[in-house]
Amino acid sequence: MRQRPALSPIIAALPSTVPFVGPEAQERERGRAFRARIGANESSFGPSPRVIARMERVARDQWMYCDPDNYELKVAAAAHHDVAVENVVVGEGIDGLLSLVARMYVAPGDAVVTSLGAYPTFNFHIAGVGGRLATVPYENDRESLDGLLEAVVKERAPLVYLSNPDNPMGSWWEAKEVIRFIEALPETTMLVLDEAYGELGPASALPAIDISRPNVIRMRTFSKAYGLAGIRCGYAIAEAEVIRDFEKIRNHYGVSRMAQIAGVEALADQAYLETVVARVAAGRRRIADIAEQNGLKPLASATNFVTIDCGHDGPFALKVLQGLLSRDVFIRKPMAPGLDRCIRVSVGLDHELDVFAWELPGALAAARGN
Amino acid sequence: MRQRPALSPIIAALPSTVPFVGPEAQERERGRAFRARIGANESSFGPSPRVIARMERVARDQWMYCDPDNYELKVAAAAHHDVAVENVVVGEGIDGLLSLVARMYVAPGDAVVTSLGAYPTFNFHIAGVGGRLATVPYENDRESLDGLLEAVVKERAPLVYLSNPDNPMGSWWEAKEVIRFIEALPETTMLVLDEAYGELGPASALPAIDISRPNVIRMRTFSKAYGLAGIRCGYAIAEAEVIRDFEKIRNHYGVSRMAQIAGVEALADQAYLETVVARVAAGRRRIADIAEQNGLKPLASATNFVTIDCGHDGPFALKVLQGLLSRDVFIRKPMAPGLDRCIRVSVGLDHELDVFAWELPGALAAARGN
Repeated sequence: MRQRPALSPIIAALPSTVPFVGPEAQERERGRAFRARIGANESSFGPSPRVIARMERVARDQWMYCDPDNYELKVAAAAHHDVAVENVVVGEGIDGLLSLVARMYVAPGDAVVTSLGAYPTFNFHIAGVGGRLATVPYENDRESLDGLLEAVVKERAPLVYLSNPDNPMGSWWEAKEVIRFIEALPETTMLVLDEAYGELGPASALPAIDISRPNVIRMRTFSKAYGLAGIRCGYAIAEAEVIRDFEKIRNHYGVSRMAQIAGVEALADQAYLETVVARVAAGRRRIADIAEQNGLKPLASATNFVTIDCGHDGPFALKVLQGLLSRDVFIRKPMAPGLDRCIRVSVGLDHELDVFAWELPGALAAARGN
Repeated sequence: MRQRPALSPIIAALPSTVPFVGPEAQERERGRAFRARIGANESSFGPSPRVIARMERVARDQWMYCDPDNYELKVAAAAHHDVAVENVVVGEGIDGLLSLVARMYVAPGDAVVTSLGAYPTFNFHIAGVGGRLATVPYENDRESLDGLLEAVVKERAPLVYLSNPDNPMGSWWEAKEVIRFIEALPETTMLVLDEAYGELGPASALPAIDISRPNVIRMRTFSKAYGLAGIRCGYAIAEAEVIRDFEKIRNHYGVSRMAQIAGVEALADQAYLETVVARVAAGRRRIADIAEQNGLKPLASATNFVTIDCGHDGPFALKVLQGLLSRDVFIRKPMAPGLDRCIRVSVGLDHELDVFAWELPGALAAARGN
């Protein structure tokens, strides 16, 4: 019997099954494509035409390594948010940055606080460093600021995660409530404030950026409103010393050259972004109308998706989801207790929402056993 | 005085300065562009025209997330190497995969063996998990297989790194020697066999792939011969259980959609690859000729660069490097004792090698103080 190299203790203890199932995997299993891809909170409206044209022009330049400093993109993001270059770090999507934050602030056995049912990739990365999750239930379909705070104090957590606007519920807190939460946090607890949907909700939900505070990391992405989920690029804004600490472990050549170029161009076309924001708002209204026409309750949303209360329990909503999938409509749903009565539908193109409107009644009838 | 969140002990102990200085950073500092970009072992010949055309066509599709399974690229890579999909994992370049390997096999305080002067990014990632490097000097400008083996046994190292063909010296071992090394390794020691330059050297340097062996991970990249350094994509081939362990911690959405598509297309155009390999061989001969015409000694190379012995000590070679940089020729050099007498010149386009040929005599004269 041959021996094997031993995994390090933290990795050896991790489960082999992981939570990542993309629509492509489902299509492979089903043997056919979805007719509506409205499940991953992508932007069906795509990136700005300027971004597309730029990407086409630079395709042939991809023989060159990316700039390991991500300099031009950091300059553009810093200018956009009126901070210094020293306050910005770029990563392989917010996911990549979350992996680094976990390594930076969590030692094995440390408790990390998040909401029960919040972003699973954060949880995945916390597990990956041997952290222990302390989860706080949502309250009225919002992340519970008071609950998170209480858990942070009780667990002496070095790290807490808050998504605002929230995924998977689409809910949000006004900036003044978020600021109150930040000010009440222990100074030794780092807050990851995930603002992936920040461009899509009310401006009043976004606190002014304060880079003097060493325990807040704000995260932004090109995956949502900017329509560039495929390029894998996000950035974090924080106090300069916090940003310097990312340098110690990040994969300096991790963000592609194409992504850096596309990101710069995307930030430069704010006029296009505004059109997307308007189209997303219209799409949310349309999804809400479709839900109501079917006797379901759409939740208010500050994101590019609408979470719909199906009016019964988790197993019922799961049947609705399955009915839609079997009708070639790719959507997703929250799975945590209390949230699992809902399905989550991303804003898509008109023809995709037509498909959703057409197929929802059948999926509901099947779920009800009619 | 405000408190700060504490870094985890491993990260807190790391230096803030990092070894990554790209040519873009040098150009920013100099205030002008290089005339020859022949320092980062990129492929100035670029990717296949098929790859470029495909990238241009799919630019507009980048609103979709990448497939987190990297499925189509894994299928293509598996077919290319005649292994199963279960034997392949895709990452954000070999760099990204090295970061995962460090986390998988190295616990804090573990010794990890590599050659003194070998790939610094590997060392960076080992430091990032609290590993301790045990370095073995090169022998006759080759990595010392016997020396590495001895260090592995002495240090009870869980992990050892070997680049074949080698960077920064361009040297290589024949497959039978590598196999002898593998067979002599303790079964509990994982070997990272970095074959980034594998397509560019003699086929006789590449051992047949044996995915039954649980202590070897072979790494390949699209950054070198395939001319796609900017897309950040590489892959590892190993026994299926080893590959499954990567799933536990990798950033599942880390490799861009564009990279996955480009990688598939690149593997499909082996005819183009052959033309690149031939052009690289011609470029190596040209660089060697230029070196010899200047009284320097080019080392034999199985890569897309030529390492040139400048005939004196490290400080002299550093002056030659600086002379070339100041003459707008971007090259690099090894820094480790014994290797530091050399400069390293990547194969570039004809007009870039013309610039090198034109500027080298002046740089040499300046280094000699003439």
